[in-house]
Amino acid sequence: MDNRSRTQVAIVGAGPAGLLLAHLLRRSGIESVVLENRSRSYAEARIRAGILEQGSVDVLRAAGLGDRLNREGMRHGGIYLQHGERRTHLDFEAGCGRSVWVYGQTEVVKDLIAAADADGQRIDWEISGDALHDVDTDAPYVTYRDSDGASCRVDAAVIAGTDGFHGISRPAIPEARRSVLEKEYPYAWLGILAETAPATDDLIYSRNKRGFALYSMRSREVSRLYLQVPAGEKVDAWSDDRIWDELARRFAYDGWSLNTGPVIDKSVLPMRSFVSAPMRHGNLVLAGDSAHIVPPTGAKGLNLAISDVVLLARALHAKFTANDDRLIDSYPSDAAARLWRATHFSYWMTTMMHVSDDAFTNELQASQLRYVMGSEIAQASLAENYTGMPY
Amino acid sequence: MDNRSRTQVAIVGAGPAGLLLAHLLRRSGIESVVLENRSRSYAEARIRAGILEQGSVDVLRAAGLGDRLNREGMRHGGIYLQHGERRTHLDFEAGCGRSVWVYGQTEVVKDLIAAADADGQRIDWEISGDALHDVDTDAPYVTYRDSDGASCRVDAAVIAGTDGFHGISRPAIPEARRSVLEKEYPYAWLGILAETAPATDDLIYSRNKRGFALYSMRSREVSRLYLQVPAGEKVDAWSDDRIWDELARRFAYDGWSLNTGPVIDKSVLPMRSFVSAPMRHGNLVLAGDSAHIVPPTGAKGLNLAISDVVLLARALHAKFTANDDRLIDSYPSDAAARLWRATHFSYWMTTMMHVSDDAFTNELQASQLRYVMGSEIAQASLAENYTGMPY
Repeated sequence: MDNRSRTQVAIVGAGPAGLLLAHLLRRSGIESVVLENRSRSYAEARIRAGILEQGSVDVLRAAGLGDRLNREGMRHGGIYLQHGERRTHLDFEAGCGRSVWVYGQTEVVKDLIAAADADGQRIDWEISGDALHDVDTDAPYVTYRDSDGASCRVDAAVIAGTDGFHGISRPAIPEARRSVLEKEYPYAWLGILAETAPATDDLIYSRNKRGFALYSMRSREVSRLYLQVPAGEKVDAWSDDRIWDELARRFAYDGWSLNTGPVIDKSVLPMRSFVSAPMRHGNLVLAGDSAHIVPPTGAKGLNLAISDVVLLARALHAKFTANDDRLIDSYPSDAAARLWRATHFSYWMTTMMHVSDDAFTNELQASQLRYVMGSEIAQASLAENYTGMPY
Repeated sequence: MDNRSRTQVAIVGAGPAGLLLAHLLRRSGIESVVLENRSRSYAEARIRAGILEQGSVDVLRAAGLGDRLNREGMRHGGIYLQHGERRTHLDFEAGCGRSVWVYGQTEVVKDLIAAADADGQRIDWEISGDALHDVDTDAPYVTYRDSDGASCRVDAAVIAGTDGFHGISRPAIPEARRSVLEKEYPYAWLGILAETAPATDDLIYSRNKRGFALYSMRSREVSRLYLQVPAGEKVDAWSDDRIWDELARRFAYDGWSLNTGPVIDKSVLPMRSFVSAPMRHGNLVLAGDSAHIVPPTGAKGLNLAISDVVLLARALHAKFTANDDRLIDSYPSDAAARLWRATHFSYWMTTMMHVSDDAFTNELQASQLRYVMGSEIAQASLAENYTGMPY
């Protein structure tokens, strides 16, 4: 063993969940080490989610991470729902008094890394061969090779697994102790990032006979657009021209047109609901995508990771500063209640907006969409879920 | 042909849809003949639905059918939702300003038959061998044998098929012209009628690990209770004692208990969503269960039949008194919009309250139920659907 160190919390994964957890712990006077397979430049460039709930913005601001968010984030007071060639604006503030912000996950990660730098947070980038040990004892530890290939070990009181769906943390809980509930959807999203000003002030969710489409944005100059495609679709099947043509059809609306521009990123996103329980095993705790995945339709993935981390930071604060384990004991059930609300809402929004192979399902979901577009009460219900249930 | 007669509208089926249509047409000065396979005493005794939406009550009152309904009907301003051993009252009037009434379909039918008698309405009971002819021409007619076995023929301008799911009207539309959308649920309801005062002021819908249960009532002396059972369950498997024991478990709630009493009716109700389109073919129009079935959870079946008949009576009034076919032309789409709202709501309520074999579905639906029990907005949305969307 070339390097051995000790910390209070070993955080496996430097995505938004792991970085925010390290940040909140630092502010509580709790020491952590963050370990990450990827490089810092990869983390700062990766294109992911783009919508922050009101509650997530409040958390970031209260944690001193609001400066650039306040300057560059775009507050959105609603969304458009489109059904065929009918389009309706939903006013979230009228519905529930809250809003959402367009501010990319990439930007949140950059802000978190900058804050970590400023505070001298230890983040070991580009590690390899990481493994978790003795997580069900009082002396868990992580072994890995650092970016120079030196073998390392970090001992901790608690290991936080924030290394995503494909990470090593969830599998470190013995299979016999884990239960997984999941649903695969028979469609995926083809997403593009385009250098063009958004042609809409708010996001447009469109249910069209040809399939779902979402008009979103990352900034005042960059648009983010998605098309429902069959599960397993290859990116190569979609030329830029074919994409713009299909988007124009699915967003067709009298007197309105798309802005087109250079496509700077193109990818296919799978659609899955996945919930693994429990989120704690001994002194290993999970947060974010390592424990659960939602389809992107309701914009919940990043917000749910933030929600887990808020609950977890509070619990670790009580544990380390007051030797009070009650919140860490209730963390799995506290997180599960919020998780299932988001999982249900994501499922609800996904099935309402996507075209299915089943004709009964399509009529049912089209009726639900007509109801939402015509009922102020139904719109308020969508709004309170979309903007995030209060902590 | 022993007997041949002519009328404006031949109505096949003397359930609530057919009898209400004849009633509304009479009040518009339009003549009809009602034909029914069953006996009058059967029609007046058959146990069916028991909840009238605000809009249905308004229709019956406006049609002069409100006397006994006003005296004996019980206005209900809400329902209880129970999840495990937690029970919450939903206030419909606070949610949407409307209510429902407990007044059995059997009572509505008796009132309609009494009104028909008073007005000299022709109803041929206990007919047999009925068949529809030439429904896509201007001279459709019905042949049948009357209760004495004499062969009869009724010629009409329009035939209204209100003879339910198993009737002859829907199949009289050529199969190539019909589309059917349907969903079978993997469970059924075991329903009992018991001579005991209801132990609750409002209906109780309970989701329990053992299955769904519904506490309903027909009058101040008669309770109507239901248990989720597997599809295809035999009534014989359920002794009265077993039923009361199971009801007590599924309604278990601190400080509250069931009233038991003699079971006077016991039956198994299948659960199905079924929508046949179109609801018009030439001069044949369908209304009620002949065109569509909803599971009973949302109490929509009878109300949907009344809704169809209201639209149809208006359309026939315009056709016969002003020679205006626009409403009869738009009847299929006008009825379909209301039908799909009710079909969606029934599906939504059914899947939320019943226990499924799929663990992901159960967690999802349990989360939805927790949301509805905790959110005033979600409760208002349930209320506006349960009490019926306005005409």
